Amino acid sequence: MITLTTDFGYEDHYVAVMKGVIYGINPDSRVVDITHGVRRHDIRHASYILRCILPYFENAVHVFVVDPGVGTERKSIAAKLAGNWFVGPDNGILTLVKNEVKEIYEIEIEAKSTTFHGRDVFAPAAARIDMGDLSFLRRIDDFVTYPYEEARRVGSQIEGYIIHVDHFGNVITNIPADMLGDARRIILKGKILRFLKSYGEASVGELIALINSENLLEFGVNQGSAWERLSLSPGDKIIIKIIP
Amino acid sequence: MITLTTDFGYEDHYVAVMKGVIYGINPDSRVVDITHGVRRHDIRHASYILRCILPYFENAVHVFVVDPGVGTERKSIAAKLAGNWFVGPDNGILTLVKNEVKEIYEIEIEAKSTTFHGRDVFAPAAARIDMGDLSFLRRIDDFVTYPYEEARRVGSQIEGYIIHVDHFGNVITNIPADMLGDARRIILKGKILRFLKSYGEASVGELIALINSENLLEFGVNQGSAWERLSLSPGDKIIIKIIP
Amino acid sequence: MITLTTDFGYEDHYVAVMKGVIYGINPDSRVVDITHGVRRHDIRHASYILRCILPYFENAVHVFVVDPGVGTERKSIAAKLAGNWFVGPDNGILTLVKNEVKEIYEIEIEAKSTTFHGRDVFAPAAARIDMGDLSFLRRIDDFVTYPYEEARRVGSQIEGYIIHVDHFGNVITNIPADMLGDARRIILKGKILRFLKSYGEASVGELIALINSENLLEFGVNQGSAWERLSLSPGDKIIIKIIP
Repeated sequence: MITLTTDFGYEDHYVAVMKGVIYGINPDSRVVDITHGVRRHDIRHASYILRCILPYFENAVHVFVVDPGVGTERKSIAAKLAGNWFVGPDNGILTLVKNEVKEIYEIEIEAKSTTFHGRDVFAPAAARIDMGDLSFLRRIDDFVTYPYEEARRVGSQIEGYIIHVDHFGNVITNIPADMLGDARRIILKGKILRFLKSYGEASVGELIALINSENLLEFGVNQGSAWERLSLSPGDKIIIKIIP
Repeated sequence: MITLTTDFGYEDHYVAVMKGVIYGINPDSRVVDITHGVRRHDIRHASYILRCILPYFENAVHVFVVDPGVGTERKSIAAKLAGNWFVGPDNGILTLVKNEVKEIYEIEIEAKSTTFHGRDVFAPAAARIDMGDLSFLRRIDDFVTYPYEEARRVGSQIEGYIIHVDHFGNVITNIPADMLGDARRIILKGKILRFLKSYGEASVGELIALINSENLLEFGVNQGSAWERLSLSPGDKIIIKIIP
Repeated sequence: MITLTTDFGYEDHYVAVMKGVIYGINPDSRVVDITHGVRRHDIRHASYILRCILPYFENAVHVFVVDPGVGTERKSIAAKLAGNWFVGPDNGILTLVKNEVKEIYEIEIEAKSTTFHGRDVFAPAAARIDMGDLSFLRRIDDFVTYPYEEARRVGSQIEGYIIHVDHFGNVITNIPADMLGDARRIILKGKILRFLKSYGEASVGELIALINSENLLEFGVNQGSAWERLSLSPGDKIIIKIIP
């Protein structure tokens, strides 16, 4: 199985061309779209998607094309992860799964364009890896990551980062559930929020804290958008206080 | 065949995770996306989609995840319809197809999260039903519906409701074609509209009435948006008058 | 393989209904979405998509439903192209691939609606052609095209047209690479732009010219939108000057 994640959006032919290339190499390929709505050029968004999908796929080749550096010196890479492959530009997308990377390869396929390596390099690489052909891969030692800090305790507070804002306006942090213990309320930016189990327990319009499906602290509004209320975006640092 | 309809949008990993779960249970599953652009938490929109697709699928398991009550006491259900299955939360999505429901079941699969039953409950339930495994289903008697009134004649007028506004800005009512007889014009909100057979017959920019592909009265503008002109939204009551 | 390109967007049931019809005729059909984000009623956009995908598919039936004239006298057609089929309304979508058209047919399938020939005519036609059934096709001689002029040299200048603005705001012209020779800079609307090989070579925010993956002159901004800077839309005429 080959999955596709890009920032190409849904109005153009770029994703379809990648599929055409894949089916041209192997008509029996199974291609699954993850999302083509990654924020333009947002490598952190792509990395978060990769982290979130990885546990749910086996023997898949995950192609990521979020590639502001296409046509420059940045490498094209393939990474063997536990049970899956990653194919994409060497620009940091692997950051949030770096501990899963077993082997790393440079892809030796020549691109015929300087602007669309999704078509010229990543789609054919994925189709061939999916068929068991690794002949065009050259083992290398390292890959690019972006600076990323885990959440940490500082005295009675926890310092973390916003890592995603989703379609619902839920604001997702990198603070794992097990740092929160038996919290019943959380103080964020001077606001006291109830720490609940689900959105449905909150009043309509109430801003709450909860543990999301990835086991991370998330801020949300029942039937509304926490993002609109909090003015927090991916990469922003937050400091929270727990009230047991 | 399994179909997926959600309000998850196209930027996140949620739909992909559901697919990963389905393929993990049955790698030969066939998964078809209906739409992930249901308005957030809009159960009426979801119900309308279900009603519209049902006649065109056979032996499909239709998974709907529009679920503002996830993690609360609302049930997770599966419904045997004529020739198809429905899987989703018990929150009213079945309303517009309630006459098609043959049997109704509670899904007995434990969720590991309180926020993402699409992944934890509905995806695995669909994969198993699609394979013929009904062992986790417990027969129940009833399901939730929202209040819904059919269109009706009141003297020389017809009272109905807006049930959908589509991507083109076409405003769709619940008034069936056979209530309109040999109408040639329709009065709506003081405006006299021509009742035509197709958008192409109207002048560019003309607001018209016509029978749509679901055999319902629809208001549209040739190459424009009726929604922008009429200020009518799903749920709004309308009263029309027919001019033969 | 059957591909689908429409202006139906991603919120409605229309595309799903077409898939249901196709699978109803042939459960083993392979259906690939190209895009459903064609600008509403924009035949030029559809034609550009068709031109861009065609080289990357073989033995595919490409269904296009961008159909402002649905329900009027416009024909429903199928066209045999080199190695692929086109199915859609006879309204000009074939314009940019007119030289590829080998044979042209009218589709003789009766529509049960006047508003949704995607469901009534094009989906069943595609499913049947894909299975090798051409019995419902009647050979005709001609098809509709819209006026389209190739780019041309006028003295020291090149006159061309904008043919697309993509998701990234890249502004794509119909000026082919081989008209540009050894250009190093390009003058457009009084601005002098560097002519580079890739976006990554430009400064962040710099407006540049480059040859895109379709071998056409394109204007873009490194990590930004050329469309926002240039105020140029599809159909606009441009005059450029080359500086070697």
